[in-house]
Amino acid sequence: MSSSSNIKVTPIQNSKIDSVDFNNLSFGTVFTDYMFECEYKDGEWQTPEIKPYGNISVAPSARVFHYGQAVFEGMKAYKDENDDIFLFRPEENFKRINKSSSRLAIPEFPKEYFMDGLAQLLNLEKDWIKKGKGNSMYIRPFVIATQPAISASPANEYKFMIILSPAQAYYAGEVRVLIAEEYSRAADGGVGFAKAAGNYAAQFYPTKLAHEKGFQQIIWTDANTHEYLEEAGTMNVFFRINDKLVTAPNNDRILDGITRKSVIQLAQDNNIEVEVRRVSVAEIKEAANNNTLLEIFGTGTATVINPIIGFSHKGASYDLPKIENSYASLFKEKLTNIQYNLADDPHNWRLKIS
Amino acid sequence: MSSSSNIKVTPIQNSKIDSVDFNNLSFGTVFTDYMFECEYKDGEWQTPEIKPYGNISVAPSARVFHYGQAVFEGMKAYKDENDDIFLFRPEENFKRINKSSSRLAIPEFPKEYFMDGLAQLLNLEKDWIKKGKGNSMYIRPFVIATQPAISASPANEYKFMIILSPAQAYYAGEVRVLIAEEYSRAADGGVGFAKAAGNYAAQFYPTKLAHEKGFQQIIWTDANTHEYLEEAGTMNVFFRINDKLVTAPNNDRILDGITRKSVIQLAQDNNIEVEVRRVSVAEIKEAANNNTLLEIFGTGTATVINPIIGFSHKGASYDLPKIENSYASLFKEKLTNIQYNLADDPHNWRLKIS
Ligand SMILES: Cc1ncc(COP(=O)(O)O)c(C=O)c1O
Ligand SMILES: Cc1ncc(COP(=O)(O)O)c(C=O)c1O
Repeated sequence: MSSSSNIKVTPIQNSKIDSVDFNNLSFGTVFTDYMFECEYKDGEWQTPEIKPYGNISVAPSARVFHYGQAVFEGMKAYKDENDDIFLFRPEENFKRINKSSSRLAIPEFPKEYFMDGLAQLLNLEKDWIKKGKGNSMYIRPFVIATQPAISASPANEYKFMIILSPAQAYYAGEVRVLIAEEYSRAADGGVGFAKAAGNYAAQFYPTKLAHEKGFQQIIWTDANTHEYLEEAGTMNVFFRINDKLVTAPNNDRILDGITRKSVIQLAQDNNIEVEVRRVSVAEIKEAANNNTLLEIFGTGTATVINPIIGFSHKGASYDLPKIENSYASLFKEKLTNIQYNLADDPHNWRLKIS
Repeated sequence: MSSSSNIKVTPIQNSKIDSVDFNNLSFGTVFTDYMFECEYKDGEWQTPEIKPYGNISVAPSARVFHYGQAVFEGMKAYKDENDDIFLFRPEENFKRINKSSSRLAIPEFPKEYFMDGLAQLLNLEKDWIKKGKGNSMYIRPFVIATQPAISASPANEYKFMIILSPAQAYYAGEVRVLIAEEYSRAADGGVGFAKAAGNYAAQFYPTKLAHEKGFQQIIWTDANTHEYLEEAGTMNVFFRINDKLVTAPNNDRILDGITRKSVIQLAQDNNIEVEVRRVSVAEIKEAANNNTLLEIFGTGTATVINPIIGFSHKGASYDLPKIENSYASLFKEKLTNIQYNLADDPHNWRLKIS
């Protein structure tokens, strides 16, 4: 990959890498030596910089603190046995962050800054990316409104940043989900389809209530009727009825997940039928009752594929059968093999960055 | 008002006050010499501090940047002819910020810290508060999640801050509004009733589109049907049909405005009939067509009462008549007289703080 942007690099004095226990990483708490930063002012994105990771100095009046003008992405880099480093469909993340930005009236970020920034940053941090399936570098690009003025309108100053956090395979444990009956995640005509910061904090309280009842996650339903299944907090959701997969269509409430669209493609490649259509709670309960509901799983960059062992709705609990040859494990295997350069990549999803 | 909290005060070296042109203030851009800050960690709010206003140092991984875990308030202080300083119903703001915090899984803030913090801060900044109706000190309390870890769950570290910005009478110009047909502000079961940061950025893009069409604001409608009028970006909305006022009831999508509830009370005090009930777009269009729609106005701390001169819906435009003795000017006069200690205060809305 070519690096045409003029990124200014300020070297670190000492690496922190020796202080990190790579076998005991708690998700999203350890950050690498460098970060990428690019400021927007005077109507344009300025020269990007890569500099030592550290706190940023922000005015208390910065719009991000008051009006949540902020969007983000989540992606991963993987190292293969030859120490080559790969990204998975990074153009999709690039397109999505700009889609999110547009919806929040944030100026779009130039593609070469995004791609070159990622490549240069990951090249500097090669040693932080560990080999072995499950190990990865979690990548967090984000944009925040920094203009120091508290009027409720789009800012004219922003920071685009990329920070990196090494990650291990994430085992979520046995996941039971609550189907939302009262709270909701997104409105028609709202910002649910964007990775807008505010969408996430809005889920914390209902999710805390769900935890207290013994559920790890919520599957959100449409805000109008609560009759149709949409997505979980940071995952899209698939239902397997007999040998067919069903998943909700994208709309302005649901995040267009990259893992989701990859799973749909892999299903087609493997002659597994997928229906992308509205999925009602009633249908899933009925399928659970007549034993045709074989699996539910979530898809997302952080967890890849997350099997769900049961769900609850209006006080009734449903357990999923334990099955062999689950689609969840099939797709996890297929996807991670592509991500770690252990299989062919017919759709050109891998991007070698070094 | 007693000041029982032990607030640590760090004095400034030099005041910036002489550099400020108090006759040319642009809203929310000038801040006073001091700010109030209180950190939450180890499960509790620490000793509050008042210190020189300035940038804060925040980790790029702070949850506020990624998940929008942030809430705020907006209030004002007023100075009367005797140089006494008053707040308007500050307990309502206190209760509301904690209601917002609860919904976003942020720990509630202690009342004495809030009230004493305000009083001490305003006492230090007395000279920044100018006499004369229209002049005020805009007060922005807010809470942000500062924990440096990007997992999507409630933070365990926060900052509660209060910053102050001197304000002049805000003349919004002639305000025409667009009634929302497609975009929406809040979902049933969502966070619309909270002053959650993310609610505001979500409105920027649709509002920008409205500006481009010549409208200063949007009146949001319910996300399900877009048939019922809810509120504007930072104002609740009243409609006057003949001599009766109607306004939407509070629900989980609408902010429970303090100006709104004060106007309802003042209407009752003045024998003006107020109906708090769902208001349909159809009803308002019909009233405009048969000339019984006499006024529309917004209510909010920043603008007090904001008359609206016309609206548009599905391509049709409606102008409101120019009338004498408008309710908008009546309520503005009554409210500001109470705020500036120029009239009796039968409901004890004023709080003298020095
Ligand atoms: C709300 C939401 N849905 C779904 C996903 C899964 O998307 P992806 O597969 O692109 O990671 C995410 C995480 O990115 C998310 O935040
Ligand atoms: C969404 C929204 N509605 C209404 C209002 C008016 O509320 P108040 O009268 O308490 O200022 C505000 C401003 O605070 C607001 O942000």
